[in-house]
Amino acid sequence: MTPNIDAAIAALSHLDIDTKPASVKSKSRDLFWYSPVLKARLDHLVADFAVSPRTEAEVIEVLKVCYAHDVPVTTRGTGTGNYGQAVPLAGGCILHLNKMDAIREIHPGRAIVEPGCLLKDIDGACKADSGQELRMFSSTWATATIGGFVAGGSGGVGSVHWGALRDVGNIIRLRVVTMEAEPRVLEIAGEDLHRVSHAYGTNGIITEIEIPLAPAYDWVGLFLTFDNFTEALRYSYALAASDGLLLKLVTVFEAPIAHDYFQRVKPHVTPGQVVVALMVAPHAMPGFETFTKAWPNAEVIYRSDRSDWPRDPGLVFEYGWNHTTLRALKVDPSITYLQVGYGTDDPIGLIERVRAKFSPEVLQHIEVTRQGGRIGMGGLSLVKFTTEERLDEIVRIHEEMGAPNFNPHRYTLEEGGRQAVDARQLEFKRDADPKGLLNPGKMIAWDDPDWGYDRMYAWPGIKSAAE
Amino acid sequence: MTPNIDAAIAALSHLDIDTKPASVKSKSRDLFWYSPVLKARLDHLVADFAVSPRTEAEVIEVLKVCYAHDVPVTTRGTGTGNYGQAVPLAGGCILHLNKMDAIREIHPGRAIVEPGCLLKDIDGACKADSGQELRMFSSTWATATIGGFVAGGSGGVGSVHWGALRDVGNIIRLRVVTMEAEPRVLEIAGEDLHRVSHAYGTNGIITEIEIPLAPAYDWVGLFLTFDNFTEALRYSYALAASDGLLLKLVTVFEAPIAHDYFQRVKPHVTPGQVVVALMVAPHAMPGFETFTKAWPNAEVIYRSDRSDWPRDPGLVFEYGWNHTTLRALKVDPSITYLQVGYGTDDPIGLIERVRAKFSPEVLQHIEVTRQGGRIGMGGLSLVKFTTEERLDEIVRIHEEMGAPNFNPHRYTLEEGGRQAVDARQLEFKRDADPKGLLNPGKMIAWDDPDWGYDRMYAWPGIKSAAE
Ligand SMILES: Cc1cc2nc3c(=O)[nH]c(=O)nc-3n(C[C@H](O)[C@H](O)[C@H](O)COP(=O)(O)OP(=O)(O)OC[C@H]3O[C@@H](n4cnc5c(N)ncnc54)[C@H](O)[C@@H]3O)c2cc1C
Ligand SMILES: Cc1cc2nc3c(=O)[nH]c(=O)nc-3n(C[C@H](O)[C@H](O)[C@H](O)COP(=O)(O)OP(=O)(O)OC[C@H]3O[C@@H](n4cnc5c(N)ncnc54)[C@H](O)[C@@H]3O)c2cc1C
Repeated sequence: MTPNIDAAIAALSHLDIDTKPASVKSKSRDLFWYSPVLKARLDHLVADFAVSPRTEAEVIEVLKVCYAHDVPVTTRGTGTGNYGQAVPLAGGCILHLNKMDAIREIHPGRAIVEPGCLLKDIDGACKADSGQELRMFSSTWATATIGGFVAGGSGGVGSVHWGALRDVGNIIRLRVVTMEAEPRVLEIAGEDLHRVSHAYGTNGIITEIEIPLAPAYDWVGLFLTFDNFTEALRYSYALAASDGLLLKLVTVFEAPIAHDYFQRVKPHVTPGQVVVALMVAPHAMPGFETFTKAWPNAEVIYRSDRSDWPRDPGLVFEYGWNHTTLRALKVDPSITYLQVGYGTDDPIGLIERVRAKFSPEVLQHIEVTRQGGRIGMGGLSLVKFTTEERLDEIVRIHEEMGAPNFNPHRYTLEEGGRQAVDARQLEFKRDADPKGLLNPGKMIAWDDPDWGYDRMYAWPGIKSAAE
Repeated sequence: MTPNIDAAIAALSHLDIDTKPASVKSKSRDLFWYSPVLKARLDHLVADFAVSPRTEAEVIEVLKVCYAHDVPVTTRGTGTGNYGQAVPLAGGCILHLNKMDAIREIHPGRAIVEPGCLLKDIDGACKADSGQELRMFSSTWATATIGGFVAGGSGGVGSVHWGALRDVGNIIRLRVVTMEAEPRVLEIAGEDLHRVSHAYGTNGIITEIEIPLAPAYDWVGLFLTFDNFTEALRYSYALAASDGLLLKLVTVFEAPIAHDYFQRVKPHVTPGQVVVALMVAPHAMPGFETFTKAWPNAEVIYRSDRSDWPRDPGLVFEYGWNHTTLRALKVDPSITYLQVGYGTDDPIGLIERVRAKFSPEVLQHIEVTRQGGRIGMGGLSLVKFTTEERLDEIVRIHEEMGAPNFNPHRYTLEEGGRQAVDARQLEFKRDADPKGLLNPGKMIAWDDPDWGYDRMYAWPGIKSAAE
């Protein structure tokens, strides 16, 4: 199956098509370079052309043409993903959805939007329309698209109240175009959502999203300091467990993360201080103060509604989730990260054991979220990178200690997830992408169903640097 | 300390005062008669007069006059409480707050209201103003006041998402008038809220309430049937634990409650069927359907947005909380009830053990709520009443089995609660009601600090039927 790139470009020339090498190259990259492992493998990859459809009809046209000419299609929102999800391993076409950014409908509790809408723009429109906003968003809110969040993200700011993006109810409906001779348009809801959401665009192109909303508030961003990490975790757990306090973010940073990596926070903390970042609804602030008074060692050093810092730190959530890694990387390029699940049974105990084992090689950055009706914790731990072997060893020891990793140093769905075939996704791909042209190389189950997961998967189809 | 009723009436004659025996008698009663135990003890009690202040200034005037003349004051919202909270054990004055029903301010996430507002009217005003409503309300929403809910209630419809009324954040601020020679007006927030909320008006008169709001939705009311009680509990637990599904009510009725006591539901269920009542946000309905599909034995028999029942059942929440008891009582006057805590650790196991012990003498009616960041269950069990001794025995056995009771057959704060002195409430009463004139007889700690709770407290000051 050799792609006929030239024929495809010719057939699509009436669309908004881009063949300029420099811009195609920039559209072929995402933020995989947060991982030294992925950087070593994906840095050279580039598509042959990019096209920006304006409508679903144009998406269908692109898919039809690429199908006819065996051209791989890798969909792109704004390429803020970290696992090379948007990198075209086999070249071909970048389907860039930036022009499909209409907000179609806003209703009480839900909105219907096109995939290329920025998360920030959805919030702006919903707030202006009816005082609503997204339940949750990735911390790349200002630059990421909703399509990329649904196809490549997992949760984020708001997950402390609403759980993960995959939890039933957090996506209402998707409209999806298949990759066939005659592409079909499918309305996906219910259990079927799992086939398409978080599938890295390997299963179909999402052209419309119906997503639940929550009320918009002027969230108060806060930083608190503690002298003791365990106490900060206990505080954060108990705060999140206060059902009457409406929160949007509860994040804990082991020392010296805040001091060393958060430039505008640094003047206000010592290297030894643990920092907790919060977003609290304004009408929950009196309750928050009542709650916090019972923790004599908690000190509020910043609140966005009453700041006296000479240099404002900006949005507090842009310190949490993977923005923590970004800030650390900027200061120390040798830093990379892990994504660890500490669960709901004894997250604090498990985190303490892991920390005792690894600190300071691995520094704990904890996100508190709701998981199955309980309070849970996850880590986007900062790792001082030395070698790939050591990184793999660190991951392995975590897992032996009972803390599963969603490995951000892998470009396949399975290795970044539960290291098992998702039968629903695979079955759907057989139906929706029979030639396997959608984001090839990202689903191990498609290419090598018997893969053992004992070592990193290397897709045989990946373009070599020389090509 | 003998009250000088005539002097007080004379001093208050320029206010909206009521001395007509029939109407004063009706204002002296609440719904204590749901309990045969309380009915035997409180049925004859009546105040000497009632007064309906229109303003906080008039409240102050009433309290000042009653203080001067040693007249007990029992505050009344609309008297829908079940524990005789609003019954004047020592006669005196009924302070009826029905005229103080202004909605003062509505903001994003919160409202400021007078105590005599009906819960229903607050919801109506907040919805019209800005698509908001109360986070939670007692199922007497249509008839009860917010002041009575805060001073006498504990939670209700909405607690499955927001927890209990006493949980930090669920009341923002109270304005309270003290019972002294010169009544003071206090603004109460933070930890101090526990001194005044759920204190049955023994600690001061609430004249203003700041309460958090949630977005208003056109909640879909549902009834589902199951053939198996445990499965219905498991379903309800798992549903409530789905963080992405926005719910306002999750209630389970053991068979044959729905068949025997819910007249409009009866034609649609068999005596053997367990019924689950739900309120689900409209935009959560697709997710709800996805969730429910995984439970093949769950059958939706009614949904308010698509009803084909010839006789509409009305508001679904008016089958839950203590409305279950009300409906059972109407059919079988020998029924009374318990309030049982099954906690969060193994509520289903505990309920099953209790049910195995007592059914059908005690039928399980379960309310699912959030408790400290987890899903918990409570019971408003229906009891086939025989004797007080047997009722006490049932309560005792529950407690021995690890299921604490909030005994609704007692008229004191302590016996209806945790059977222990609340030091904060007592201390505050010393300060705010030095003569002990506010709702006398309701706080054991005030009258008999050494009471042992081994038997029912009988306040010595209670008027005898002959008086
Ligand atoms: C600093 C930083 C912080 C981050 N924080 C978070 C966080 O809090 N939570 C989180 O979940 N992620 C986070 N991420 C990852 C990423 O930013 C988000 O998932 C983001 O929402 C992706 O959106 P995007 O538009 O950049 O998607 P892209 O990177 O462009 O695409 C992501 C994946 O989705 C596919 N895709 C995109 N659009 C479609 C479509 N319409 N149909 C089918 N497939 C499609 C792409 O092919 C790709 O596989 C973070 C990343 C960084 C760098
Ligand atoms: C069928 C039924 C269902 C119910 N369901 C629930 C439920 O789901 N949840 C729940 O919590 N309760 C429930 N209840 C109990 C009761 O209806 C509620 O607590 C209700 O909110 C009380 O309001 P009210 O205006 O009737 O108060 P009242 O009965 O008039 O007063 C209650 C108590 O508060 C005091 N009080 C009233 N106003 C003030 C004030 N301004 N300042 C100081 N003290 C004051 C009174 O003195 C009294 O002690 C139910 C009762 C029934 C009969």
